[in-house]
Amino acid sequence: MEKIKLFSGNSVLTLAKKIANQLKIDLGNATVSKFSDGEISVQINENIRGSDVFLIQSTCSPTNDNFMELIIMIDALRRASAGRITAVIPYFGYARQDRRIRSSRVPITAKVIADFLSNVGVNRILTIDLHSEQIQGFFNIPIDNISSSTILLKNLLEYKFFNPIFVSPDIGGIIRTREIAKLLFDSEIAIIDKRRPSANKSQVMNIIGKVKNRDCILIDDIIDTGTTLYNAAKALKKNGANRIFAYATHPIFSGQAEKNLKKSYIDNIIICDTIPLSNKIQNLKKIYIISVSKILAEAIRRINNEESISEMFNLLL
Amino acid sequence: MEKIKLFSGNSVLTLAKKIANQLKIDLGNATVSKFSDGEISVQINENIRGSDVFLIQSTCSPTNDNFMELIIMIDALRRASAGRITAVIPYFGYARQDRRIRSSRVPITAKVIADFLSNVGVNRILTIDLHSEQIQGFFNIPIDNISSSTILLKNLLEYKFFNPIFVSPDIGGIIRTREIAKLLFDSEIAIIDKRRPSANKSQVMNIIGKVKNRDCILIDDIIDTGTTLYNAAKALKKNGANRIFAYATHPIFSGQAEKNLKKSYIDNIIICDTIPLSNKIQNLKKIYIISVSKILAEAIRRINNEESISEMFNLLL
Ligand SMILES: Nc1ncnc2c1ncn2[C@@H]1O[C@H](COP(=O)(O)O)[C@@H](O)[C@H]1O
Ligand SMILES: Nc1ncnc2c1ncn2[C@@H]1O[C@H](COP(=O)(O)O)[C@@H](O)[C@H]1O
Repeated sequence: MEKIKLFSGNSVLTLAKKIANQLKIDLGNATVSKFSDGEISVQINENIRGSDVFLIQSTCSPTNDNFMELIIMIDALRRASAGRITAVIPYFGYARQDRRIRSSRVPITAKVIADFLSNVGVNRILTIDLHSEQIQGFFNIPIDNISSSTILLKNLLEYKFFNPIFVSPDIGGIIRTREIAKLLFDSEIAIIDKRRPSANKSQVMNIIGKVKNRDCILIDDIIDTGTTLYNAAKALKKNGANRIFAYATHPIFSGQAEKNLKKSYIDNIIICDTIPLSNKIQNLKKIYIISVSKILAEAIRRINNEESISEMFNLLL
Repeated sequence: MEKIKLFSGNSVLTLAKKIANQLKIDLGNATVSKFSDGEISVQINENIRGSDVFLIQSTCSPTNDNFMELIIMIDALRRASAGRITAVIPYFGYARQDRRIRSSRVPITAKVIADFLSNVGVNRILTIDLHSEQIQGFFNIPIDNISSSTILLKNLLEYKFFNPIFVSPDIGGIIRTREIAKLLFDSEIAIIDKRRPSANKSQVMNIIGKVKNRDCILIDDIIDTGTTLYNAAKALKKNGANRIFAYATHPIFSGQAEKNLKKSYIDNIIICDTIPLSNKIQNLKKIYIISVSKILAEAIRRINNEESISEMFNLLL
């Protein structure tokens, strides 16, 4: 195995430093800035010939800037003769546009991003909780999509739940919710089935499953504006839920998110550090952040060492 | 020849509408907006199956956003079964990083952009005054790099110059300057050769050529912060130049540009509409804008009609 060199874009510098600490190495020396007109400027300041390079960057907002920074850094690393380049993308943006529905004239941005990464010369991808597993098939290079559920579980075990039930806030999230429910005492799941009776009528929230007097744990991969969770919690309360928790890997928190979080019935919101938070949101009492630095560091060590990633999770449990 | 469909990104909508007017067609119907988290959302609202699609977008500032908008629109157009897609890129950004000097560890962004465009499925490129002609070699698809010098000439012929001389503001611009000088009465050229005597001494501006008592016309492809032109004009004045004009195709005008333009010795600054101007700069008296809409419309008509583009310029002269 070649020497690990760890570089970072500007999106998740704090997380990158934590990973470097875990691996007991320094972050690689690179200058990543902007020219006067906003074009990205990259300069790698150390020899990386033959090294096993890992580049950490989330393609969170400002997504286009962070993505181009990632791509341009990869180009610089490759031209500087890196031995192998693994793009470590804790939050993989543009993943929600991953299909065309009924031949609508829309792009498939997840494929655009995947093609870009493959073509610019990255050798592997490491990411967490990709919006859909199918996106792995958009790549022609190896991609490890690890799950945050093991680190979440450790956190959940600290709560004393009363008759807990895991809840998917929509039909799309059932698989994810069931996976976590199975891991924690093989718990039951409930599903919120949003229906719009007719075009100009407002959505009805049907709850499939029994939530009355139970602690509900809402599971999602992304919290964006927080509207889905706000509405889900309201429906659960209306149906007699006891306490309400929400867990999601990726805290986008755009638009009305702060407002939605504040006024929502959710008691605790547990999220990961795949996307940095604004100070305002970070300081909300109900927010609890779990770091993915340990599992990412362990995955990087294993990739460098040609050890199994799938077995990593058996060990963690 | 298939029917022309003309679409536009958000960077140069005014120019795109002018081109549509010239071609006597309507702009294609597409919704190009952003999701709450800033990711680009594209929806093509009309059938384009089999059409000869032209998509107009400058990759000017905010470069990453405009570039991703271009790429994602191309993806949507291709998936909607466009017959052929030509990306019309009046200003081609990221072109100044087009080489690695002495194995420095830097990216070649012009190649990154070229690869992206080729791989996303665009069939041809049409652009104006690419920063270096070599960038054409970065593409595996046909690229027409047309020159704005013919439309510039029409404008220059309106001035009554006194013993004119064309001036390249640096060594890199000699070829461009000579091309235009040859077209206008086979005029003489001068060159400003910037030299830094030693690391912590300021630049010395040596003028190669005779500028005393002559009207000087500075030629460049891009005006960015305007510092180069400001310094060039100062050096020309110091060496006894009469009036000073500046011509550049692409008005980036970032950072201190407005300040530099205002205080500079340049009497008239002639630029094209490949990049939209801020109102403040547009209203400066010394700014004169020439539109590229006619030559772009003519080039589009010829591409659609399989007519020669190189002969287009003989006709224009
Ligand atoms: N950045 C985004 N913000 C909000 N909605 C998005 C975004 N990207 C994609 N979508 C939409 O979200 C839906 C996909 O969500 P899902 O069913 O959870 O995969 C699609 O209708 C997309 O058009
Ligand atoms: N967006 C930009 N703004 C300012 N300088 C740039 C930009 N892109 C590239 N450069 C630098 O400009 C120089 C290339 O200019 P040129 O010699 O005119 O091709 C190189 O040193 C580049 O690093």
